[in-house]
Amino acid sequence: MTSLTLADIRAAAERIRPYVHRTPVLTSTQLDSQLGARVFCKCENLQATGSFKARGAHNAVYSLSDADAARGVVTHSSGNHAGALARAAQRRGIPCTVIMPANASAVKKAAVAAYGAAIIECEPTLSAREAAASRVLATTHGTLVHPYDDCRVVAGQGTAALELLEDYPDLDMLLTPVGGGGLLAGSAVAAKAVSGKVRVVGVEPELADDTFRSYHGATRVVINSSTTIADGLRGSIGERNLELLRKYVDDIVTVSEAEILAATRFLWERMKIVVEPSGAVPLAALMSGKVRVSGLQVGLILSGGNVDLDALPWVRPASR
Amino acid sequence: MTSLTLADIRAAAERIRPYVHRTPVLTSTQLDSQLGARVFCKCENLQATGSFKARGAHNAVYSLSDADAARGVVTHSSGNHAGALARAAQRRGIPCTVIMPANASAVKKAAVAAYGAAIIECEPTLSAREAAASRVLATTHGTLVHPYDDCRVVAGQGTAALELLEDYPDLDMLLTPVGGGGLLAGSAVAAKAVSGKVRVVGVEPELADDTFRSYHGATRVVINSSTTIADGLRGSIGERNLELLRKYVDDIVTVSEAEILAATRFLWERMKIVVEPSGAVPLAALMSGKVRVSGLQVGLILSGGNVDLDALPWVRPASR
Repeated sequence: MTSLTLADIRAAAERIRPYVHRTPVLTSTQLDSQLGARVFCKCENLQATGSFKARGAHNAVYSLSDADAARGVVTHSSGNHAGALARAAQRRGIPCTVIMPANASAVKKAAVAAYGAAIIECEPTLSAREAAASRVLATTHGTLVHPYDDCRVVAGQGTAALELLEDYPDLDMLLTPVGGGGLLAGSAVAAKAVSGKVRVVGVEPELADDTFRSYHGATRVVINSSTTIADGLRGSIGERNLELLRKYVDDIVTVSEAEILAATRFLWERMKIVVEPSGAVPLAALMSGKVRVSGLQVGLILSGGNVDLDALPWVRPASR
Repeated sequence: MTSLTLADIRAAAERIRPYVHRTPVLTSTQLDSQLGARVFCKCENLQATGSFKARGAHNAVYSLSDADAARGVVTHSSGNHAGALARAAQRRGIPCTVIMPANASAVKKAAVAAYGAAIIECEPTLSAREAAASRVLATTHGTLVHPYDDCRVVAGQGTAALELLEDYPDLDMLLTPVGGGGLLAGSAVAAKAVSGKVRVVGVEPELADDTFRSYHGATRVVINSSTTIADGLRGSIGERNLELLRKYVDDIVTVSEAEILAATRFLWERMKIVVEPSGAVPLAALMSGKVRVSGLQVGLILSGGNVDLDALPWVRPASR
């Protein structure tokens, strides 16, 4: 995967085109005037399944040979990747099994089940998930599609940045959230290949700053748990993604919980889009001044919009 | 105004282009499969100022001669039109005065003030508003821009439907909300002029069914107050708009409060967009089966997204 190229991402874009949206890019006069910049928001919250994860999942599923596909796909995820993989498998008409922790929310289970996937519950630990996945694979001989440590997935995730730079080739800077690093790695490979000037910056919650520490330090830091409200970014950076980040990403910065909340609320209230806290993290870096963009053209990837409307981010205790 | 033509709407489109967004059109695989139809949502919630009202307001303001413009514009509105007119006036650099009832929400006043308009408070009755507006006009000799009983405003509102039919010329049906009737009248004139087959349907809350009764009856019915959650649709149909509706609109239907709430929540939860209850009313007609669309291509105008995030529609008492 560390040899991921623009050609892989272009091939992914071609492969997934019939199944995912070319998402709109929104702007806000108010935001631009506040920042003295021009900001272009790539709305992956409006993507099928509510997040960019649809891109990687469909690329992985439609990369399989018919014989491999017939044996189905498996993943262990309680988040957006699970729904995305289930939807891709349903589209291709192949079996999908999702290993979910027994304490995953009913809403998330329902979303996965609605796409026709089988759900296997396990203890909420990584080792329990991996063991359960192994058992399924031993029986079905299906294909594991990891949420971020998979070159087909990372190539798919890179297609959002590719579209954004096709629409706005003069971007000076591109910011994405970073959790496992699939979105940031794919975006950076795409952006650096098509633009001679764009700086690529990853943004991470302070409360889950494994990538920040890994990127700026000598060794990969793993975080076992985090309470950040940006629940999609609680996982640790993948080893191979970190290599890509070191090669193609210009900086990693962190933002506080309050900054994430303020950016999330701005997106709902002013831009009229439902974005989950994880997706608002790049905007938080701009609004807080952590990343200075005065005079620049800036692209943001708003990664997803899957939130529980009965438990809105800003009515939760800020310490969560 | 009853002679409003496609040429007026095309001229408005040209006039306002530098100041408003060409809003995106979103689709939902889930919605389409539920309805057995193809539904195209024109997202006026993503319009500048958060509603289609920006279109009519900018058309009115930029239609004025320099001499008239210099004397400023005035309106009496507590809703989206006030913010839209204030923004248009600010853009053109002319004075704007908004008459608002003293009990209007602080959020709405702040939005109008943020665009630099002067606010004059009055008693919350139509006669008090009109009297206050007359006093301002007597002093300034400015121009009254009525929220919907104004041909420049109605021509501007018709540009959203024009764009939608440019993008999707094969629509079988077009649905819009109806309050004062500016959006519906403008949309109907545009749609019937550019399409030989599109049916145009207005949708109204049961609790504010003055247009339904006026359209299906012999005389114009006026409602003095309504408690519908679709607060943008509480006003009564304008007399001249009613004439246009009788001429160009194929049907008016009504939906219940529960149906409006369900559609609003669907848009937030599944389509990841913040739409106010007034804007969800056309979708409510589809989801409730009040309007059958199986096998059809259907356009909806989601009219706005201005809601108070601290008082979400679905946590208010349903009887409101």
